[in-house]
Amino acid sequence: MRILFIGDVVGNKGMKMIRDYVPALKQEYRPQVTIANGENSTPMGRGINLSGYKEMMSSGVDVVTLGNHAWSNPEINDFIDDSKRLIRPYNFPGENVPGTGYTIMNVNGFRLAVLNFQGRVFLDNLDDPFREATELVKSLQSEADAFFVDFHAEATSEKLAFAKYMSGEVSAVVGTHTHVQTNDARIINGKTAFLTDAGMTGPADGMLGMQEKSVIERFLNQRPARYKVDEDSRGIICGCIIDIDEKTGNATKIEPVKQMENGLF
Amino acid sequence: MRILFIGDVVGNKGMKMIRDYVPALKQEYRPQVTIANGENSTPMGRGINLSGYKEMMSSGVDVVTLGNHAWSNPEINDFIDDSKRLIRPYNFPGENVPGTGYTIMNVNGFRLAVLNFQGRVFLDNLDDPFREATELVKSLQSEADAFFVDFHAEATSEKLAFAKYMSGEVSAVVGTHTHVQTNDARIINGKTAFLTDAGMTGPADGMLGMQEKSVIERFLNQRPARYKVDEDSRGIICGCIIDIDEKTGNATKIEPVKQMENGLF
Amino acid sequence: MRILFIGDVVGNKGMKMIRDYVPALKQEYRPQVTIANGENSTPMGRGINLSGYKEMMSSGVDVVTLGNHAWSNPEINDFIDDSKRLIRPYNFPGENVPGTGYTIMNVNGFRLAVLNFQGRVFLDNLDDPFREATELVKSLQSEADAFFVDFHAEATSEKLAFAKYMSGEVSAVVGTHTHVQTNDARIINGKTAFLTDAGMTGPADGMLGMQEKSVIERFLNQRPARYKVDEDSRGIICGCIIDIDEKTGNATKIEPVKQMENGLF
Amino acid sequence: MRILFIGDVVGNKGMKMIRDYVPALKQEYRPQVTIANGENSTPMGRGINLSGYKEMMSSGVDVVTLGNHAWSNPEINDFIDDSKRLIRPYNFPGENVPGTGYTIMNVNGFRLAVLNFQGRVFLDNLDDPFREATELVKSLQSEADAFFVDFHAEATSEKLAFAKYMSGEVSAVVGTHTHVQTNDARIINGKTAFLTDAGMTGPADGMLGMQEKSVIERFLNQRPARYKVDEDSRGIICGCIIDIDEKTGNATKIEPVKQMENGLF
Ligand SMILES: [Fe+2]
Ligand SMILES: [Fe+2]
Ligand SMILES: [Fe+2]
Ligand SMILES: [Fe+2]
Ligand SMILES: [Fe+2]
Ligand SMILES: [Fe+2]
Ligand SMILES: [Fe+2]
Ligand SMILES: [Fe+2]
Repeated sequence: MRILFIGDVVGNKGMKMIRDYVPALKQEYRPQVTIANGENSTPMGRGINLSGYKEMMSSGVDVVTLGNHAWSNPEINDFIDDSKRLIRPYNFPGENVPGTGYTIMNVNGFRLAVLNFQGRVFLDNLDDPFREATELVKSLQSEADAFFVDFHAEATSEKLAFAKYMSGEVSAVVGTHTHVQTNDARIINGKTAFLTDAGMTGPADGMLGMQEKSVIERFLNQRPARYKVDEDSRGIICGCIIDIDEKTGNATKIEPVKQMENGLF
Repeated sequence: MRILFIGDVVGNKGMKMIRDYVPALKQEYRPQVTIANGENSTPMGRGINLSGYKEMMSSGVDVVTLGNHAWSNPEINDFIDDSKRLIRPYNFPGENVPGTGYTIMNVNGFRLAVLNFQGRVFLDNLDDPFREATELVKSLQSEADAFFVDFHAEATSEKLAFAKYMSGEVSAVVGTHTHVQTNDARIINGKTAFLTDAGMTGPADGMLGMQEKSVIERFLNQRPARYKVDEDSRGIICGCIIDIDEKTGNATKIEPVKQMENGLF
Repeated sequence: MRILFIGDVVGNKGMKMIRDYVPALKQEYRPQVTIANGENSTPMGRGINLSGYKEMMSSGVDVVTLGNHAWSNPEINDFIDDSKRLIRPYNFPGENVPGTGYTIMNVNGFRLAVLNFQGRVFLDNLDDPFREATELVKSLQSEADAFFVDFHAEATSEKLAFAKYMSGEVSAVVGTHTHVQTNDARIINGKTAFLTDAGMTGPADGMLGMQEKSVIERFLNQRPARYKVDEDSRGIICGCIIDIDEKTGNATKIEPVKQMENGLF
Repeated sequence: MRILFIGDVVGNKGMKMIRDYVPALKQEYRPQVTIANGENSTPMGRGINLSGYKEMMSSGVDVVTLGNHAWSNPEINDFIDDSKRLIRPYNFPGENVPGTGYTIMNVNGFRLAVLNFQGRVFLDNLDDPFREATELVKSLQSEADAFFVDFHAEATSEKLAFAKYMSGEVSAVVGTHTHVQTNDARIINGKTAFLTDAGMTGPADGMLGMQEKSVIERFLNQRPARYKVDEDSRGIICGCIIDIDEKTGNATKIEPVKQMENGLF
């Protein structure tokens, strides 16, 4: 079982990279399941809309994950409940949280559960992802053969601690949110593929997807600034490839994917 | 020299309390200078608009201070530079910050400098208020006879530390921002009147000015919620009275002001 | 049923105020239950030790609550499980958390449950206090006739939201942690006594219990500083008195208590 | 001019990696200047001691930088003023901050200024690194031919914004602090080499240098835990190589360095 994971898709340029590069990456790597984090996929880079979700699907993505920007575009409330392959962090608290926090892909009989969790360090007070993930994985034992987690979090320590804590239970933990790919892909305890952050997909030259002028001004002035997606930038697509041994559920390989639009990095 | 200070004015109800109660409070206490924090005075409770500023002035307020919501209503950029008695936190960084961080009231020859500073604990990375306030007070020695500071901050420790640090130099430090009046009015070192927080002016029954439903939902769900000003609530006006000895510049009295609309608390 | 609550007891001076003033306050107010927050009661002002707990008990305190400093003195692990009237925030996560988060006082057949919860805004990622408190209160319905909560939290909004959310269920919510008494004692919805913060008990003149020099230096230098309890200060004892109607469980009165050592404030 | 930079050296294992691998890396890459971040180089992984500093120097390091743990070992106050090649973040505020925030290496007449700054997002309220770095670089124009900055910060956005803002002025910005090497080495605007984080040097298998048990427990329990350096782990050394054109001051190459103890990653 091979998985292609694509990190946070940002704005129109991110969507263009999905349309232009996911088919080619699938041709190259031949994954059975393709997952992309879509929390910044609207033209404004905040949240997701229905056409973006559908376009990712028709470009070859099988599951779309989210993060702290899940609800940034309020339209999501209109379609998340009907979007079977769109998942938001499972550990949002409260009753009747719209949508779901996991989905199960059946590929020739091998059932891969794709989970989305969000960290709490420097982020909102969601429910404990360590405990909730443990319980969810346990409850899905009879429905899934392996587990992949998009862990959307800021702090490197929380991401690694989560991966180590879950490493007996899940086949892969890939971090998202910082928009910068890390250089630490590895397999933990011979079982769990891990990458602290997959990086982002979208404009390569600005400020992690946004135009640099307003972001820098905010740092200098500490006054509100309206960030805009960096439309004119070259594009980049980032993520990783993970192989899972279907007999044992152990990850056997993880390697980063990073490709510039129209050429090499 | 007597000063009447009014804590964060919130929404239409806060403006109504200003119109209805500032004249009466002035009648009762006979302050020479009246100051109000207007950072939440728009109908939405975010920032300030020109008509609100003018209405505060025509209701008897002499100086309007601000805080972390100074720029929340972007219209402020259109009038702050022409609004002599509207001050924003002095320690916003950057070049050409709109507006000013202090103003000087001349009352029968006694010159009271009114300063606005913002704390940093749990708030944005403004310039160091301790150092900036020290330098500003020093630079105004020949222009002012006494100094009043609205210190807009979250943490009780930062507010008290600021007051103690400045207590050789300024006659009063009154905290704002938490929207809850504290019960610790005192004179520090026989010199500086201090109150950790003046409290808020506006709807008394909701969530510190906002409707309680959406605020509570945000705590429960950790998803974005649109807060609305609690329009139907009874009103409250909170602040304090401070007396300064014009010969020494020492504060001689500070007492809280807290009045419910149409009657007692 | 009358309750005397005493806010965060800090250091040796705080313990002295307990010894010297709790008996007198009990004489004056005649409470049936006396509760004190002891999270800063060691000589260092961090955590609690066994002799301090026992001394509070023998001075007339019936229940000791804690907060974010519950574990600051590691000795607590040796005695918390055997200390029936010492409670720590209920919503600490994890398995086998030492101690308990509530206790029930039986006063002439009226059973008052005393609960301790901790907020999360600007604090650690404990379990959701809103949900946990709701469930705990529900589970104790047959064991208790009324509920008192020490809600240890930083943000005024979280404290008020918690009180409003719980106001159908509990008779009193008193905030602790900021060490500054607020001036907003009230009864919410005709049911629940509320005070944003009870204030502290200990040295009155320093920095919320600590010597001012090192605290101010930390703000100026942003380097580590070792805080010491302000031993030489005059003492203060802060808290509140709450009356609960035993027939309805409704609070009928809440008023602040604040007394300086050897005289008036 | 070639620079070898080594990311946060953690504990005894980190020091062993310095002793064992810096000479070999220098042999391999032939840098003229070698810089290492030593903020975690004590056996406890907190701060630096004199013997560690001296050992780094004798192992071939030319300059040691620090970060938020600069003062964690208070012994530093005894030797930092006499340690010419030990620099701490320049933007610590206050008067008479021990030590210095930069040093200048003269290599065959080419003068490389090595600067250390610390970010503020999710960290302490130091002085504004953007403004302070701009002013420092300007003031050193006649003393230095090129500038290298170790920017010790948490947030990817602050690190990239700093690098972009400084990119007209400095030849390299390398991030430290997260202990995870990023996969985004690049040259900004044809001028400034940038890497969001260099990664760490020390135990490879634990939690970013610490033993995993206590770190994971802290996430689960939210109670204080004493972290210990992971002594038994295999070692890793992380950093980067940067080439600067001495004629233009422009960076011409940046590539990551990452080596496991006794073999390949
Ligand atoms: Fe994102
Ligand atoms: Fe995110
Ligand atoms: Fe406000
Ligand atoms: Fe505010
Ligand atoms: Fe506390
Ligand atoms: Fe406390
Ligand atoms: Fe650090
Ligand atoms: Fe470090």
